[in-house]
Amino acid sequence: MSGHIHVVGLGPGDAAHVTPAASAALAQAGHLIGYGPYLARVSARPGQVIHASDNRAEMERAHHALSLAAAGETVAIVSSGDAGIFAMAATLFEAIETLGEAGQRVDVTVVPGVTAMVAAAARLGAPLGHDFCAISLSDNLKPWETILGRVRAAAEADFVLAFYNPISKARLWQLGEILKLLRTIRAPRTPVIFATAISRPDEHVQVADLANAEPKMADMRTLVIVGSSASRCVPRGDDDVWIYTPRRAAAA
Amino acid sequence: MSGHIHVVGLGPGDAAHVTPAASAALAQAGHLIGYGPYLARVSARPGQVIHASDNRAEMERAHHALSLAAAGETVAIVSSGDAGIFAMAATLFEAIETLGEAGQRVDVTVVPGVTAMVAAAARLGAPLGHDFCAISLSDNLKPWETILGRVRAAAEADFVLAFYNPISKARLWQLGEILKLLRTIRAPRTPVIFATAISRPDEHVQVADLANAEPKMADMRTLVIVGSSASRCVPRGDDDVWIYTPRRAAAA
Repeated sequence: MSGHIHVVGLGPGDAAHVTPAASAALAQAGHLIGYGPYLARVSARPGQVIHASDNRAEMERAHHALSLAAAGETVAIVSSGDAGIFAMAATLFEAIETLGEAGQRVDVTVVPGVTAMVAAAARLGAPLGHDFCAISLSDNLKPWETILGRVRAAAEADFVLAFYNPISKARLWQLGEILKLLRTIRAPRTPVIFATAISRPDEHVQVADLANAEPKMADMRTLVIVGSSASRCVPRGDDDVWIYTPRRAAAA
Repeated sequence: MSGHIHVVGLGPGDAAHVTPAASAALAQAGHLIGYGPYLARVSARPGQVIHASDNRAEMERAHHALSLAAAGETVAIVSSGDAGIFAMAATLFEAIETLGEAGQRVDVTVVPGVTAMVAAAARLGAPLGHDFCAISLSDNLKPWETILGRVRAAAEADFVLAFYNPISKARLWQLGEILKLLRTIRAPRTPVIFATAISRPDEHVQVADLANAEPKMADMRTLVIVGSSASRCVPRGDDDVWIYTPRRAAAA
């Protein structure tokens, strides 16, 4: 008899953003698999086996889950945010595809979650209120020219831009190159949001004009949102601002 | 003394996808404001006042919430999915901006939710596993040429495409035009997902090749996802398919 794999999005951090469906899937599982800091957010019940691994070990995690499920176990693979957006679900299905016919016997449920850009947007107002793109800036998995080409196309078509994985210890220069490119396309006053560790104890948020935005405003836990030509800043009482993108778009 | 406005995303439909933060905000509110069918998903407690309105009455809802908050009331404005993505949050901040300085005294919390494309993607696998765009096909609020231009740019840059509001009673031809445009850019075998009423009792899902996709596969409750050149279909045991977009992108 085959087991079951739940791929579970834990939301941005605070337990208040973990859906009841995600909590139920976690409670059912005999095995919890994931990147250590994400597993640390889960209150494991007695008897659950925790398998923490390194951030880069995604394919190993997928194969581990598949071998446990083949042995009849119920497994939850956890991701931060939503598991389907730059996270573990795609890796699992890639592993399932390589199994060929045996992959058809694997029972999988993907439990959707609150993805980082949605949490960041809510914290700042409604910057994703109109057409937007989500782009990973990590070039571990794709050529830098592909990233640049997509950012250019999306910026020229006036999408709001949400950047996942804007920076890492191994990649310090890419975000600077992206900001430089955007300055050739978007106005200097375009708002740029750096939303870090949203809903977690060390949450911090910075808003800059595109002209003054700097890569050092981001770290590995930052989601960057760049407004479209229509995005607006509205003062809040506390010296802070709301940012929103109106649903009504003017003629180009 | 001023009240408070919570803008709350209810997720795709099933209560299992409503976050604890959303439930808490709904429970706190003295007044619930929203489109009737969305409010019908909320179990109001005794003493809460329900203000249901028509789908198009977004700005009226925002002003209603602001006047209640100005009178010291606690209000929840509800949206399906996430309130920040093609939904009420942007409308509220637009209304707040028009208030000028008085707008700075309005206390607002946006509570993030599971947006429709994330729920649809989870149901089908991980089609949003790599760079993607979200585009509303409604031309109530923007010129049709803007929509066409954005779809063309995003398709040429090989983003996965998620279409909100693909069709309505008043707009039957647009989705057909979009599919025709995409056939000039993407391969005939590109998977197209029609995900309708995800997580609700009348949920249904259809997957077609781009060559055979038809507007009649969508209705007002459908989220349409069009794969990139990298998106893959993997057979499931039940004659159904998983669709995922690998995180690793080949050179262009």
